[in-house]
Amino acid sequence: MDLKSFMAEYKEKVEEELRKFFIAKKKEVNNELLLRAVETIEEYTLRGGKRIRALLMLIGYRMYGGEGDEIIKAAASLELVQSYFLIHDDIMDESKLRRGKNTVHKIYEEEHLHNGYPGNPQRFGENAAIIAGDLANIYAFEMLSNTTFPLERKEKAMRELERIMEYTGYGQLIDIYSGVLNTFSENDLLLLHEYKTANYTIYGPLALGAILAGNEPMAIRDFAIPIGIAFQLQDDILGLFGDEAKIGKPVTSDLAEGKKTLLIIKALERGNENQRKVIGAALGNPAVTLQQLQEVRDIVKKTGSLEYSQALAAELVNKGKSALAKLEISSEEYRRILEDMAEYIIRRTM
Amino acid sequence: MDLKSFMAEYKEKVEEELRKFFIAKKKEVNNELLLRAVETIEEYTLRGGKRIRALLMLIGYRMYGGEGDEIIKAAASLELVQSYFLIHDDIMDESKLRRGKNTVHKIYEEEHLHNGYPGNPQRFGENAAIIAGDLANIYAFEMLSNTTFPLERKEKAMRELERIMEYTGYGQLIDIYSGVLNTFSENDLLLLHEYKTANYTIYGPLALGAILAGNEPMAIRDFAIPIGIAFQLQDDILGLFGDEAKIGKPVTSDLAEGKKTLLIIKALERGNENQRKVIGAALGNPAVTLQQLQEVRDIVKKTGSLEYSQALAAELVNKGKSALAKLEISSEEYRRILEDMAEYIIRRTM
Repeated sequence: MDLKSFMAEYKEKVEEELRKFFIAKKKEVNNELLLRAVETIEEYTLRGGKRIRALLMLIGYRMYGGEGDEIIKAAASLELVQSYFLIHDDIMDESKLRRGKNTVHKIYEEEHLHNGYPGNPQRFGENAAIIAGDLANIYAFEMLSNTTFPLERKEKAMRELERIMEYTGYGQLIDIYSGVLNTFSENDLLLLHEYKTANYTIYGPLALGAILAGNEPMAIRDFAIPIGIAFQLQDDILGLFGDEAKIGKPVTSDLAEGKKTLLIIKALERGNENQRKVIGAALGNPAVTLQQLQEVRDIVKKTGSLEYSQALAAELVNKGKSALAKLEISSEEYRRILEDMAEYIIRRTM
Repeated sequence: MDLKSFMAEYKEKVEEELRKFFIAKKKEVNNELLLRAVETIEEYTLRGGKRIRALLMLIGYRMYGGEGDEIIKAAASLELVQSYFLIHDDIMDESKLRRGKNTVHKIYEEEHLHNGYPGNPQRFGENAAIIAGDLANIYAFEMLSNTTFPLERKEKAMRELERIMEYTGYGQLIDIYSGVLNTFSENDLLLLHEYKTANYTIYGPLALGAILAGNEPMAIRDFAIPIGIAFQLQDDILGLFGDEAKIGKPVTSDLAEGKKTLLIIKALERGNENQRKVIGAALGNPAVTLQQLQEVRDIVKKTGSLEYSQALAAELVNKGKSALAKLEISSEEYRRILEDMAEYIIRRTM
């Protein structure tokens, strides 16, 4: 099996498990308000996405010889974790849209407006969305708990899931500081990428799969963490240099958000006073123009900052790939799938 | 042992376990920003509180013959759950103070202001507090996971904790709707109290203790749910008729918040047009006066609404007590402690 057919086969199965979970959950709640909340979380979760974390958990399981379909349910739980993070993330970023539809806090804000509820619609929307995110979080634990793996493995997997979510929370916190601290450094940024991307998107899912197959996950780290950081560096390069169709958001949005990417950090470090001023005027400016974007792109290139990020990403990819080559796993087929997955992860955004 | 000495002995031990957890956690994080976040959650958690949920979990364990001190660690995890709910609750209620000190979102908002960070201080404060609450949530699961109970029991306890948190989330959601729906009924309110108070504060903790002692928790429901609802009814009575020193908040605060208690629901249902107008003008009015409070109190009495709440609370207490008398447990001593606890819960706020 190659990566493409693996993804095609399992993405649908993962979504089927999510649908089953929500059908059962909707039967459980016997109150109209709660039913609507469950439906909102369901619709948000099933809007789409590549299910990359679930697929990596499946790969982590299969590559250690794990068999059977119970793993699909366990893997699907990561998509509920993802809903939890995204629902809270949307609040924090004050995003109105997610995959072209209203974010959860916007859905509730509009319900408030539409029905003429008393009080502040934005507050109501955010409050309901904090709770909806919290519920998606608990649903994720529930879904993993509901699997029938041997208790020892399940217990280890629960602890790993706790660790993943703890580290991702740390990543989120460092992330909000990245927007406000002048002293935010390359080291801070790499720690952020390790916690929030490498741990959450790549290493954690693979580790969970390995654990449920009865294996220790530690060896996977040497592959997953560098690949995960490289992915984020690549994502940031696309965010500044990609085109709108490819990255699915306005080309100015990383700049407008004030995202302190490695590209920006290095350009500020290496640039002259004038170049720093140009970046300073564009970064975190909601009205940043395409002209300013082009100037920042030029500075990032001229200072060698683009090259620096690209070189670091390439180095990390090589590091990850050579760790993968040495990994003792039970199936060469899955090593190839993982190689393809690494390529896939690096070549495009999710 | 009586309730008083039980509480005196174990409250300190529960807090000692929390302190130990945070000492270990502070050693784990090797980043200044994260260290401060852990310290903030620690300080918030250790500000005080009667540790009622932890104590009930201990009672649930001991009354089924559970022995040893590992249960203290498990019980302490409920105080982290409490921090999680309160941190998010403070955001939702826009509360500035909790136990006389700044709420978590206020702490971060002031950090933002003090350091002159760019952007919106309130947004930064709320974002950091959403994450801090999420972390406290994960810490709770971690602390329970770290205990050394037999795996079967621990797995059941994890699932029970998930159920508790799910139901409490439902309670929170119904609660925010109670503030905006004109159609909010007595049945809605009793469901809210069942989910948010009876389940979370009384039944859940006792059930967790029973499970970790190797027992089925279902029989405890018949005691715990009525007592929990009665507690909340009593709390609402105190909220309207108590004095400030006793309830620890302004006597007008329930009215100002627009809290739809059973007292209010029944008075609106039974009152004449003029009485409904008086209540309507006071409810949810941040500038509500002591004069208005007195008028609302009079209406709640005159319509028989106070009597109705008191009678329902008394009925529920009797129901709970007779279920307790029939409960098959291994220790009469703990039945008495639980009786005292029920009295204690009903006689005062927490």
